[in-house]
Amino acid sequence: MPKNAFYAQSGGVTAVINATACGVIETARQHSDKIGKVYAGASGILGALNENLIDTSLESDADIAALLHTPGGAFGSCRYKLKDMDTHRAEYERLIEVFKAHDIGYFFYNGGGDSSDTAYKVSQLSEKMGFPITCIGVPKTVDNDLPITDTCPGFGSVAKYIAVSTREASLDIESMYETSTKVFIIEVMGRHAGWIAAAGGLASEKAGDPPHIILFPEIAFNKEAFLGRVQKAVDEQGYCVVVASEGAQYEDGTFVADAGMKDAFGHTQLGGVASTLANMVRDGLGLKYHYAIADYLQRSARHISSKTDVDQAYAVGKAAVELAIEGKNAVMPVIVREADAPYTWHIGEAPLSEVANVEKMMPRSFITEDGFHITDEARAYLQPLIQGEAYPPYENGLPKYVKLKNQLAEKKLPTFEPSK
Amino acid sequence: MPKNAFYAQSGGVTAVINATACGVIETARQHSDKIGKVYAGASGILGALNENLIDTSLESDADIAALLHTPGGAFGSCRYKLKDMDTHRAEYERLIEVFKAHDIGYFFYNGGGDSSDTAYKVSQLSEKMGFPITCIGVPKTVDNDLPITDTCPGFGSVAKYIAVSTREASLDIESMYETSTKVFIIEVMGRHAGWIAAAGGLASEKAGDPPHIILFPEIAFNKEAFLGRVQKAVDEQGYCVVVASEGAQYEDGTFVADAGMKDAFGHTQLGGVASTLANMVRDGLGLKYHYAIADYLQRSARHISSKTDVDQAYAVGKAAVELAIEGKNAVMPVIVREADAPYTWHIGEAPLSEVANVEKMMPRSFITEDGFHITDEARAYLQPLIQGEAYPPYENGLPKYVKLKNQLAEKKLPTFEPSK
Repeated sequence: MPKNAFYAQSGGVTAVINATACGVIETARQHSDKIGKVYAGASGILGALNENLIDTSLESDADIAALLHTPGGAFGSCRYKLKDMDTHRAEYERLIEVFKAHDIGYFFYNGGGDSSDTAYKVSQLSEKMGFPITCIGVPKTVDNDLPITDTCPGFGSVAKYIAVSTREASLDIESMYETSTKVFIIEVMGRHAGWIAAAGGLASEKAGDPPHIILFPEIAFNKEAFLGRVQKAVDEQGYCVVVASEGAQYEDGTFVADAGMKDAFGHTQLGGVASTLANMVRDGLGLKYHYAIADYLQRSARHISSKTDVDQAYAVGKAAVELAIEGKNAVMPVIVREADAPYTWHIGEAPLSEVANVEKMMPRSFITEDGFHITDEARAYLQPLIQGEAYPPYENGLPKYVKLKNQLAEKKLPTFEPSK
Repeated sequence: MPKNAFYAQSGGVTAVINATACGVIETARQHSDKIGKVYAGASGILGALNENLIDTSLESDADIAALLHTPGGAFGSCRYKLKDMDTHRAEYERLIEVFKAHDIGYFFYNGGGDSSDTAYKVSQLSEKMGFPITCIGVPKTVDNDLPITDTCPGFGSVAKYIAVSTREASLDIESMYETSTKVFIIEVMGRHAGWIAAAGGLASEKAGDPPHIILFPEIAFNKEAFLGRVQKAVDEQGYCVVVASEGAQYEDGTFVADAGMKDAFGHTQLGGVASTLANMVRDGLGLKYHYAIADYLQRSARHISSKTDVDQAYAVGKAAVELAIEGKNAVMPVIVREADAPYTWHIGEAPLSEVANVEKMMPRSFITEDGFHITDEARAYLQPLIQGEAYPPYENGLPKYVKLKNQLAEKKLPTFEPSK
């Protein structure tokens, strides 16, 4: 009997993480001689710890296929980072016990840097415990901050959403600035890296086009310089469009808007850079402003996903299963760029040890010298990632997204009490 | 020689106001024996007062056709309400002088209630002044608050955007609530009427589906009742999605979030209902929240426009010209609903005197008894308006929106100094 597989979604979900799930499950179904059932973690890795294993074999082929166009995390995801293995070894052992109880020999962990770290540790520990698990990391993060891979599935669709929305809203402001809003700010995600904010720059084609200002976490925020640029855009173009990363920060690392909360990973919980900037514009320049906060809309907007992103999301899921079948372990399928224009790429692989806990920052050369826009080098990198449309089917004017049955497999182990 | 026409866009622009411009200009071009040039007001009616008349005859047929899929206001719009005719007659006289100087016999004013009022007054005064102008109001407003017409072009596309975005973001929250955000609030437009907020309700199909709460301006906001409903949704579904109208208000008419600014029409300038509600959720229930503010994104999102809305926007522009040619005056083409499902409609007409300054409120029967959701009656009304997709063309991953040349006609009059 072939071993079963366990697939889990980790961290913030994206418009295309289910496309990866689709790639994993469809490919596993094609290799039923090598892989038995695919179990999915209910609410991600918590599903393994709590033995809440969704039996995906009960889902129809049509429903699994529909994951390709359904945003969110179909099995649930979580922000739960396994603790240090030395002090909290019991959690890792529990994972392996659950895998053993359900004859799981493959672990596909679909997430970012933290997840790569977990998958890497499980592969090491399972070997030591005499029940070796093939652990494959599968890249996903709208933050685009994983190393080695050309991009992270999920990013291209957010990038497209932000570029399209910035272009559209700019046309609105441009129509109205004479008697109405002169400064418009759109707040975008990106805690430590400005990849998403940079994508807003694609809305512009030539000098003077909106957005006129992009605020990156990588460039120390300076209020006077910012207000000076706002006034300059208003003087020259009549209006000013700002794309602001939620992670925009001062020289000393203080976020421009710090809500003072932390999530389970210990990351500061952000919100409010747009309103903070708007207040500066009002008080400092007396200009009429509006602001939008895209928040979850940007990472769930499957209706405007990049086809390139959807294709890559599926491809890494497919490749993850193929790598596992080939006997590879502790690796991650990555996207390898062959050429910018036309964009060509293939799937390669990288050791999880080189992916885990490494954050890819945006090169300084992607940001103009003055720190307020993107360079041609950034455009050459970003442009291909938003190429193509991949519209979901519609019914009654709304996208027809699939809802899976998500039936749990019978439990075989006692309840686990995670250590605090 | 046939008389020329003047077309102006008024107030907040929409994803489809240019589709109406397209309908006006293409139809006028087809009747060159009856209508000469179509001049468009640069920045709306200000273009007439300042004699900044865009000569649309200099635009190619292809560029005019591309208006059908381009959001924003291609000629510029403005929030400028002509003052009372008794005290500021000079402004109206100036309009008529400019029309006379450029041999303009047709005035197409594309806007909401205020614009209907202006168009009506110009038709009356021009008659008195011995230079009668055929004045046709052309409906436009995302607020959907014009009387008589089944809906206002612009609304259906915002409705679709909000319904789609609510459905998508809800899938995101549903995936993550176990360890992350439990309450998500999306703030939508709608100053005095909850039409747009109601559209968010279309994201749900059955009881328990998100959104769990809709806040309408029509229903007095009660903090305790609101927090009770949030807690109930979290208890029963695990999470809570709220669609909040920017116009949500307390019993005494105080807006839940009142920024304390006013625009040129004297309307209070709103913003911040989402963050106000989020603070209530945090302080009152201690639940983790996120919020999005769609702001201008919602009314410029041509990429996800309703095909029904695009069709109707074009149709009212076309009908406006046809009514003018038929010799009708001081009327507005309106959309007449024939049936709900399948939705059928035709274009009728209404006297401007009956449209001017009448605000259509949402019927109480569209809101559930508890005040937190929409009824089946509301669904029957709203559902057809978001039907169909009308995607713009794309180039390099971005919508290909047209930028007109917008060349001004030569001025023939001295500069006008509007009275203060």
